[in-house]
Amino acid sequence: MKNMVYIQSGGPTSVINSSFYGAIQEAKRHSGEIDKIYGSLHGIEGLIYDDLIDISAEDDDQLALLLQTPGSILGTTRRKLPKDIHDPVYGEIIDNLVKHEIKYVFVNGGNDSMDTCYKISLLVKERGLDIVVVGVPKTIDNDLAITDHSLGFPSAAKYVINTFQALANDASCFMKGKVHIVEVMGRNAGWLTAAPDLLPEGNRPHLFYLPENKFDLDQFCKDVKEVYEREGYALVSVSEGVEFERLQASTRLDGFGHAQLGGAAADLCKIIEDKFDLPTRAVELSLMQRACPAYISKVDSDEAVRVGNEAVKAALAGKTGNMVILKRVSDKPYEIKYELAPLDSIANEVSQIPQDMMCDKTKMSQKFRDYLAPLIVGEAPVKYENGIALTPKLKRIKVK
Amino acid sequence: MKNMVYIQSGGPTSVINSSFYGAIQEAKRHSGEIDKIYGSLHGIEGLIYDDLIDISAEDDDQLALLLQTPGSILGTTRRKLPKDIHDPVYGEIIDNLVKHEIKYVFVNGGNDSMDTCYKISLLVKERGLDIVVVGVPKTIDNDLAITDHSLGFPSAAKYVINTFQALANDASCFMKGKVHIVEVMGRNAGWLTAAPDLLPEGNRPHLFYLPENKFDLDQFCKDVKEVYEREGYALVSVSEGVEFERLQASTRLDGFGHAQLGGAAADLCKIIEDKFDLPTRAVELSLMQRACPAYISKVDSDEAVRVGNEAVKAALAGKTGNMVILKRVSDKPYEIKYELAPLDSIANEVSQIPQDMMCDKTKMSQKFRDYLAPLIVGEAPVKYENGIALTPKLKRIKVK
Repeated sequence: MKNMVYIQSGGPTSVINSSFYGAIQEAKRHSGEIDKIYGSLHGIEGLIYDDLIDISAEDDDQLALLLQTPGSILGTTRRKLPKDIHDPVYGEIIDNLVKHEIKYVFVNGGNDSMDTCYKISLLVKERGLDIVVVGVPKTIDNDLAITDHSLGFPSAAKYVINTFQALANDASCFMKGKVHIVEVMGRNAGWLTAAPDLLPEGNRPHLFYLPENKFDLDQFCKDVKEVYEREGYALVSVSEGVEFERLQASTRLDGFGHAQLGGAAADLCKIIEDKFDLPTRAVELSLMQRACPAYISKVDSDEAVRVGNEAVKAALAGKTGNMVILKRVSDKPYEIKYELAPLDSIANEVSQIPQDMMCDKTKMSQKFRDYLAPLIVGEAPVKYENGIALTPKLKRIKVK
Repeated sequence: MKNMVYIQSGGPTSVINSSFYGAIQEAKRHSGEIDKIYGSLHGIEGLIYDDLIDISAEDDDQLALLLQTPGSILGTTRRKLPKDIHDPVYGEIIDNLVKHEIKYVFVNGGNDSMDTCYKISLLVKERGLDIVVVGVPKTIDNDLAITDHSLGFPSAAKYVINTFQALANDASCFMKGKVHIVEVMGRNAGWLTAAPDLLPEGNRPHLFYLPENKFDLDQFCKDVKEVYEREGYALVSVSEGVEFERLQASTRLDGFGHAQLGGAAADLCKIIEDKFDLPTRAVELSLMQRACPAYISKVDSDEAVRVGNEAVKAALAGKTGNMVILKRVSDKPYEIKYELAPLDSIANEVSQIPQDMMCDKTKMSQKFRDYLAPLIVGEAPVKYENGIALTPKLKRIKVK
């Protein structure tokens, strides 16, 4: 009898805990093969510093609340492991895996985290250990390679879409309104920035600026002014990843070595104000787009649980070094199948919006809409107590 | 038989259209006394420029969607009417009221809009016209005098509370997190900024900075640093109205003569980064806090409809120059009664948080909690189609 450990890594999503729940659920169905279910605190740090908690000791009703709780319940990290898998830090990881009799390792993350996952899979192979390593995909940016989409993206898209509609309702109220520049997450891929293209006419953004296209600041200013003059207000969707000479450069890097983004909308508003003396409002959808329980897509939630299930099944079948992927069978009716893909084909790759999904800066193509529309369908139920969404109260018993 | 006109004024809320719905509903119940139901487009502008639509022609199923649609469906304005009610602009208003055989005028708004409402009531009295003017309270800031609370505040509070919980779930994920400074609306009153005090321990903001208290920038920096060192991250609720020397002063004024706020969190983050080299994230809850259908409080929605009902009843009873107010009978069980208060006691007054509702910068008093807790209870139902909240499709037939 061997134990399993589950790792949440990188930026949280609205359904990252749903995949964890799915893995717990499936592990409990195989209690003859999997003994203890451990959670590694703060991503891989828990395995480096021997900081695990025993999930087997948690109550089922509290665990069920994971389905409505965005944010990584185990904590997360952006620590990038050294390239050389003979670096001493890997020794710590192996020691802890062996010490805790762990046979099954699950890493739930995006591009950078799949790199962590891949390295661990190489390491245990090299050491000849009987340890299976399986990746679980997530990232709101939807930029993971090979999988049809990433878990967490549909709920973030649903948040962005419904929030743009709310902003349109508000922004269009005034006879002479403002230029609203709304900054959406997605460093390298514009999936979320483009998502509000699904909105009905009248509630849509007027303009979209995706990181896939070269950003021309002068043209942007012209476009915005033209819309404002025509409509009396403007609603513009801008990716945090568009590149222009920033008024105030950020030099801060995260653990994975990426510059911290944000503030693009504020800078663009300042530029528009200075240039045309138009009233502006910068809106950053910020952490809300990945952390709002009220807009969890039912499709996303269900798929996240299912991928957690599939990861455990793959591990029990000994399929190490793979990530669970979603493969689309059809758009209408929407149908997905679950497969495995080798981690080295995914780690550090970036999937952007293909050209045939884009039309111009005012709209996306039908292909994009057919792709996205089924992902946001259905509302995951949320339990409230006195108007506040319930969150799990865990015992968090440390593994000795 | 006479007609009625409904005006939405000032900043929108999540339930401003619910009060309108309540007024429509009640007017239809009195079809023997009220003939046409008109909407004035863009607040008082519609009555100045003769720009009304005929709501009587709209379909009931579309009107019902007003209950889940934030933003002023009739459009709004921040235009302040001249002090002198003999200014020619008032002549236009009167001409249009007479021309369209309007007997009942409803103004739904906050402090500044109740001033508009009051002036019109004075004017029709002076002219000896048989026109009744009734105010309907709204403002997310909850700073209207006399009424127990303002419609729209409970839903905004529910948004702020649940969003702070989501931010706490996200912000606390990392071993070494960030200083999150979250900017909340409320120019002169900290009701919304203080609202997340209701959250359970662990999900609460660490610090609150309300406009009711003098803001000491040095002390703020010390407080934040101390929390960060203790907790590994910080979650701070700051009112947009706190005063300090801004890095970039805004000189833009709205129609009511107020400086446009926003950007306080970004400035405070910059100050903290420069002073202590700590990682920060500025989050502005921005328009989302007054425009999110998913967090409409059932209590707020029901009360908004009821106040719309009561306004029409008051008008039919000839009670001109009043606003409908909510008077609290008890906290537990929560009970409200609806009364009228003269507009001149409300217009341009500001209601702040009383001292006995505050403890210190880390928490509010039990009195505050008893006051706020019942207001956010219950979730107003939202109808979605393919994952997108439905919004009303109105014919918007112009009145000739």
